[in-house]
Amino acid sequence: MTYCVGLRLNSGLIMLSDTRTNAGLDNISVYRKMFTFEVPGERAMVLLTAGNLSITQTVIAKLRHAIGDEEAEERSILRAESMLDVAETIGSILNRVSVEINLKMGSMSQSATASMLLAGQRKGGSPRLFLIYQEGNFIEATADTPYLQIGEHKYGKPILDRVVSPETSLEDGRKAVLLSMDSTLRSNLSVGMPLDLAVIETDQYCINSVERIEAGDPHFSAMSDAWSQVLREGFASLPQQQGCWAE
Amino acid sequence: MTYCVGLRLNSGLIMLSDTRTNAGLDNISVYRKMFTFEVPGERAMVLLTAGNLSITQTVIAKLRHAIGDEEAEERSILRAESMLDVAETIGSILNRVSVEINLKMGSMSQSATASMLLAGQRKGGSPRLFLIYQEGNFIEATADTPYLQIGEHKYGKPILDRVVSPETSLEDGRKAVLLSMDSTLRSNLSVGMPLDLAVIETDQYCINSVERIEAGDPHFSAMSDAWSQVLREGFASLPQQQGCWAE
Repeated sequence: MTYCVGLRLNSGLIMLSDTRTNAGLDNISVYRKMFTFEVPGERAMVLLTAGNLSITQTVIAKLRHAIGDEEAEERSILRAESMLDVAETIGSILNRVSVEINLKMGSMSQSATASMLLAGQRKGGSPRLFLIYQEGNFIEATADTPYLQIGEHKYGKPILDRVVSPETSLEDGRKAVLLSMDSTLRSNLSVGMPLDLAVIETDQYCINSVERIEAGDPHFSAMSDAWSQVLREGFASLPQQQGCWAE
Repeated sequence: MTYCVGLRLNSGLIMLSDTRTNAGLDNISVYRKMFTFEVPGERAMVLLTAGNLSITQTVIAKLRHAIGDEEAEERSILRAESMLDVAETIGSILNRVSVEINLKMGSMSQSATASMLLAGQRKGGSPRLFLIYQEGNFIEATADTPYLQIGEHKYGKPILDRVVSPETSLEDGRKAVLLSMDSTLRSNLSVGMPLDLAVIETDQYCINSVERIEAGDPHFSAMSDAWSQVLREGFASLPQQQGCWAE
């Protein structure tokens, strides 16, 4: 399992992923699910992946191959004319790879799925955030729904619904995605540390930061503890409601 | 979909269910999912149901039939010698009904599932809470895990994990299950008001209260709003963490 979340705020794009990959509960590994693509001053993109590792690794390899080789079958996403073009290119590769791998899996009565989050901005365009399905189609974050999630999305959704809007600052957005991840880490063992967090500020056309947050990171632990305290104290401060049995 | 939750606290048992039943998004009805069985002063039990309505209604009908008719094929749960016996009786009926209905469904390449929460106490025994699977087997709440859920359990789990322990008071337990339901109602349209909430205090051998909480209930709405405020203010009060982009 996986949890990845992206925010499209007025001030920029924030992307967060975990790194746990597992084949059964007894075979757990750390794999990076965040991939960055950049021409500083011209375009910056972050891709997060969820699902079958053989699909996502093949897609990333094909994207990189196309960047390095002008003769490659695929189009380089560093030369695409818009973020929409990039989403279409990735969607088409993801679909082709998924179909190929599922043909093999099908012969063993198995199937594999994958999906991706793409965030980025190109000079002349606005910052955009897409969720790309393995069928190759995609949806985009809007002002009404400024975040997108893939993987184990349920535990971490309530906090996003309550605090994230397009006006949210980058600092608050960072807090929100980390708290959303914290709730998910607590509830689903197949989502695990370390975390990768990237920020693309609006109209900077570069990846302004990429951090790896390791297990036991003192800032993350302090935030997690402070949030637990907020919830417990807030719960205690809610007015008592008399149930009928107390009459 | 459905969300039902039960708490086994030292001071008593608390059971909460929603009432929404749907066959597709365009066919939504209100059905009670809470059923109470009582011999005041001797035993009190609350059963919550999730899953296929044709299964759960048939199980409830058979349980009631056995209570009214000593000659019935099934054993009356009002005459069972312990809560464990009650769980076994319900499990065995649930399994038999599920198998019968799935035989019919199988011929149409369909299947149906159901599960139940059973809470109760019998004079001479302690308060117990069970989750009964459609295979007929069951698990029981313990001091380590004093709550059990069926249906759409993910959105409402984080708050239970943080605030519920066997020492929790009935008033706080009531708040906790209602907040857990509130998070679920906000995130899953197939879980809906009104709610049914029942309390069995320890060593009273009666159902101390059954409430129906309607949509727009002023106490529930006030609690829901207060909790949103706790989360937003708590979020704002968390210390800012400097991301690397802010250096």
